[in-house]
Parts: sequence; structure tokens; C-alpha cells
Amino acid sequence: MRKSGVAVVVALLLGAVAGAAFAQAKPEQLVKQRQAVMTLQGKYFGPLAAMAQGKAPYNADIVRRNAAFLDNLSRMPWDAFDPSSKDVKGSNALPAVWEQQDKFKEAASRLENEMHKLYEVSRSGDENAVKTQIGAVGKACGGCHENFRQKQ
Amino acid sequence: MRKSGVAVVVALLLGAVAGAAFAQAKPEQLVKQRQAVMTLQGKYFGPLAAMAQGKAPYNADIVRRNAAFLDNLSRMPWDAFDPSSKDVKGSNALPAVWEQQDKFKEAASRLENEMHKLYEVSRSGDENAVKTQIGAVGKACGGCHENFRQKQ
Repeated sequence: MRKSGVAVVVALLLGAVAGAAFAQAKPEQLVKQRQAVMTLQGKYFGPLAAMAQGKAPYNADIVRRNAAFLDNLSRMPWDAFDPSSKDVKGSNALPAVWEQQDKFKEAASRLENEMHKLYEVSRSGDENAVKTQIGAVGKACGGCHENFRQKQ
Repeated sequence: MRKSGVAVVVALLLGAVAGAAFAQAKPEQLVKQRQAVMTLQGKYFGPLAAMAQGKAPYNADIVRRNAAFLDNLSRMPWDAFDPSSKDVKGSNALPAVWEQQDKFKEAASRLENEMHKLYEVSRSGDENAVKTQIGAVGKACGGCHENFRQKQ
């Protein structure tokens, strides 16, 4: 089949970035990707935690924006916990991630679910419900950090 | 005002993460945050670029998921390009980011818009339209990388 003009243009534009997508991501890259998610979860959850504690003024617009970002981010880390990455230096993941996979997946699902509930409740405009749900998300973060991450 | 029981529990849970949210983020943290976004944009755009080039089989489910993630990610980098971060080592951002702010903002908006169009067209199920739009996103990536990032 002959390549269309569009396909050729796209090929020129996308050659470099597509290259990386053929091969299985390298272990170091997987660690970089999952740590990137944690960095951004911190960026967008930190202000919500401060609001829930009354240490920052409540801002419903920021809550809505951050909750939508977090709902997406909470689904991004998990496929980067590939067994090939378990001995990478600089990772804080404990062997329990791979030795207790069912428990890890359960903790991961809990975070996704609580983040999604936060997204939903952020649409309702009920400040108290939002603050309670921010607490539930914080607990779900802890559910992984306590059992599957080296103590900081 | 007396703290409610919920507020106290939340305070215990969220103390650490909220602390970071009071202070203005440090310049090094801003660079880390925006580089985290680039890492994840690469993770989710790479497979789409490969599909658009016919180098990976077209998978509408992956396109839909990645396009939704990318629609969110494309709105995350910009506030981390604070002037305080322009001299941080390890950043590839050129001084043009701050010297030509209007052009930088225009390029940023173009990426957001093209990513959002990709999200919308990914819902339509029209494979050719999706591939064309992946090309448009690639161009918008290049719009920033050519003028505002050190040559790699």
C-alpha cells in the first residue's frame, strides 16, 4: 500500500518520539515515569490537604481543577511497577510491591476509587463533603506508602 | 472556632503533604514538576505517534485513554515556568521562555488546543481523523521545543 501524504508528514514529525514506543520501556525509564506521577500528585494534592486542614483558604475552582488532574494521575503509576524495575537504584519501592501483588493492586485500586470520588464530590460544591473526601484520599495515599515504600 | 473531629483526623493524616503547599514552590521543585509532565507526555504520546506512523497496530482503546491523559497533562506544565526557576541547573528551558512570554504562551495554548482536539476526535472513532490530529499535536510539541528548549 502506498503511504498517503499525511502519513509521510506525520512520519517526519513523529519519528523521534515514536522510536521510544517500540521497545519495552527500560527499567530506569519506568522508575522515572512512576516518580513523575508521584511528583505531580504531590503538586496537586498538597494545596487540597492544606485547605482541608484550614491552613489555606478554601478555593472551589482550584479544588475542581486539581481533583480532575488527580483523578487522571491516580491511574498512571501502576503499569510502571513492572518486575523488571525492582532493582533500579533511586527507587523507594519495597520488594513487597512484587511479593504481595494482590495487596498492592488492592491499595492501588483504593487510591483510584477515592480520587474518583473526590473528583465527583468536587463537582457538587459541598465544601464539607470535599474536605472529608480529601481526608479519605490522604488515607489511601498512606495505604501504599506505609507498606510498599521505604520509610522517608 | 472549634475544630471538628473530622478536621482533627484530616490534620493528622495530611500534615506532611500540606506543609509543602504553604510556601511558594522552590525553583528546583518547579523544574522537577514541569519535567515530570514532559516525562508523562512522552509516555502517553509515544505510542500514539507510533500508531500514526503505522509502526504500531492501531488500538482505539489506548488512543482514547492516552488522549484523555494527555488532555490533562498538557495543562500542567505552564505555571511551573516561573521566572524564579530560569537559572536552575538541569533545566533545558531557554531564556526565550521569559524573554518572549507572549510567544511562549501562544505556543502553550496551541498545544493545549491540539491535545483537546485529539481528545475529542479520539471519541469519534474515526481512525484517519485521529492519525491526522496526532500529527497536529506533534507539530504543536515542536512549536515549543524548537524555540524554547535547548537543542537535544
